Amino acid sequence: MNIGFIGLGVMGQPMAEHLITADHSVHLYRVKERSRHLVELGGHAAGSPKAVAEAADIVILMVPDTPDVEAVLFGEQGVAQGLSAGKTVIDMSSISPVATRGFASRIAALDCAYLDAPVSGGEAGAKAASLSIMVGGGQKDFDRVLPILEVMGKNINLVGGVGDGQTAKVANQIIVALTIGAVSEGLLFASKAGADPAKVRAALMGGLASSKILEMHGQRMIDRTFEPGFRISLHQKDINNALKAARSLKMSLPSTALAQEIFNACAAQGHGELDHSALIRALESMAAHEIGA
Amino acid sequence: MNIGFIGLGVMGQPMAEHLITADHSVHLYRVKERSRHLVELGGHAAGSPKAVAEAADIVILMVPDTPDVEAVLFGEQGVAQGLSAGKTVIDMSSISPVATRGFASRIAALDCAYLDAPVSGGEAGAKAASLSIMVGGGQKDFDRVLPILEVMGKNINLVGGVGDGQTAKVANQIIVALTIGAVSEGLLFASKAGADPAKVRAALMGGLASSKILEMHGQRMIDRTFEPGFRISLHQKDINNALKAARSLKMSLPSTALAQEIFNACAAQGHGELDHSALIRALESMAAHEIGA
Repeated sequence: MNIGFIGLGVMGQPMAEHLITADHSVHLYRVKERSRHLVELGGHAAGSPKAVAEAADIVILMVPDTPDVEAVLFGEQGVAQGLSAGKTVIDMSSISPVATRGFASRIAALDCAYLDAPVSGGEAGAKAASLSIMVGGGQKDFDRVLPILEVMGKNINLVGGVGDGQTAKVANQIIVALTIGAVSEGLLFASKAGADPAKVRAALMGGLASSKILEMHGQRMIDRTFEPGFRISLHQKDINNALKAARSLKMSLPSTALAQEIFNACAAQGHGELDHSALIRALESMAAHEIGA
Repeated sequence: MNIGFIGLGVMGQPMAEHLITADHSVHLYRVKERSRHLVELGGHAAGSPKAVAEAADIVILMVPDTPDVEAVLFGEQGVAQGLSAGKTVIDMSSISPVATRGFASRIAALDCAYLDAPVSGGEAGAKAASLSIMVGGGQKDFDRVLPILEVMGKNINLVGGVGDGQTAKVANQIIVALTIGAVSEGLLFASKAGADPAKVRAALMGGLASSKILEMHGQRMIDRTFEPGFRISLHQKDINNALKAARSLKMSLPSTALAQEIFNACAAQGHGELDHSALIRALESMAAHEIGA
């Protein structure tokens, strides 16, 4: 199939590579030195998002944030200028659910389909083609592109209509950030009270406190392995989307707001480019105590 | 074996019953109308904690809070007055780790052993003999009483020295409360943004946001089944212990403090005797939106 792939960063590169090696004809933008190998593998370098949309039937976006999606879709030489009726846009970036609905209706006006399909699983999941993919859009469109998504991920769910994939991703990022905060305060308390946080973590894993975060990030906190993984600065972007959306939806997310403030403290202390499990370091600085010490 | 069991409440009754039906000679305090069936099953009603300690080699406590443990151990006609050298006290209540160390040293002065062994798993776990038990104390004492604990629980860990069992339980209660807060904000956001919280929960269960709380309490929030379970009023007691201990340890638990305030709002709204998953109701009231609606 003719597929377009726009956004060849840390996530996009391995995702596009899986599509190329699955024998799709993949039109790439924007190929730089670090993504040159994708052309050597058989990908086609395109000169603009518009050129990608002209060449492909399905155009996938994997860019950093809401303004990037808007620029790629509707900017000068953008995707919208190259689309024709019957084509499909899949936005796999993590952006605003509210903005997504606006983008989708502008694409629908061109008689094209739009799916939002943000992912979780990070660089490791992208490389292993094991991403979780949360999709918003129509059932028929979902069914049609599912074989393409299955080349990049494993746990793939149609959550609801357009925007609901982004909503699920925001909910995911809220829960992940706050669960990291939960594990941080629990293990830090245990350590400061004189217990061995590794033994406490092990004892808690069997019960109601158990989570993927206690298992993976709890171990990172104990081992002091804070190389990303998923950077605090990126999680701050996602939580910023959550808090902005919450304000526009007229709702209060008090614990999410506090988690953002703790991430802000991490950034202030120079830890913004560490893994989000390093959230514990801001709490450790307040307690004058490190759990690994 | 001659076992004493003090505290025949919602948790203590089924725990004592398992010991009786496992053919131990169990001395009970305080038998009331609702625990009369334990005597019919073969338990022995004692007239005081002192009488229990005189009759038993191992004295188990399962009472509400720190002052109750102190009164039962060191009050008039208390356990300490009935103990003789070589006996063992196991406190399975959930109380202050700091106070626990004081109680243990007073019991040690009588040439008796002391283990703190708080549990998690609630009434259902007590009835099913599947409690998680977090133990603090000496390895030899732990090994000696392990067969007794195995009559009441399944996931049984020696976490460290005296007090470390209580510390692990406090850490457990911190993580559970904050994870309930995490799931509440995530699902409420999803619902208010127009997505189906049940589909979002299902999509998130495979990934980094997955937890026992998302699985069980997330389902409760969606189904609106807030009958306890574990009451908000009891979780407030545990979080109060956590915050008091944190202050005396000179550390800050900002997210735990916020969770307590949200529980306080639940209590203000008349939900203190609901299951702790009803934490979401305080957030729902702020958002003027119920996820089940």
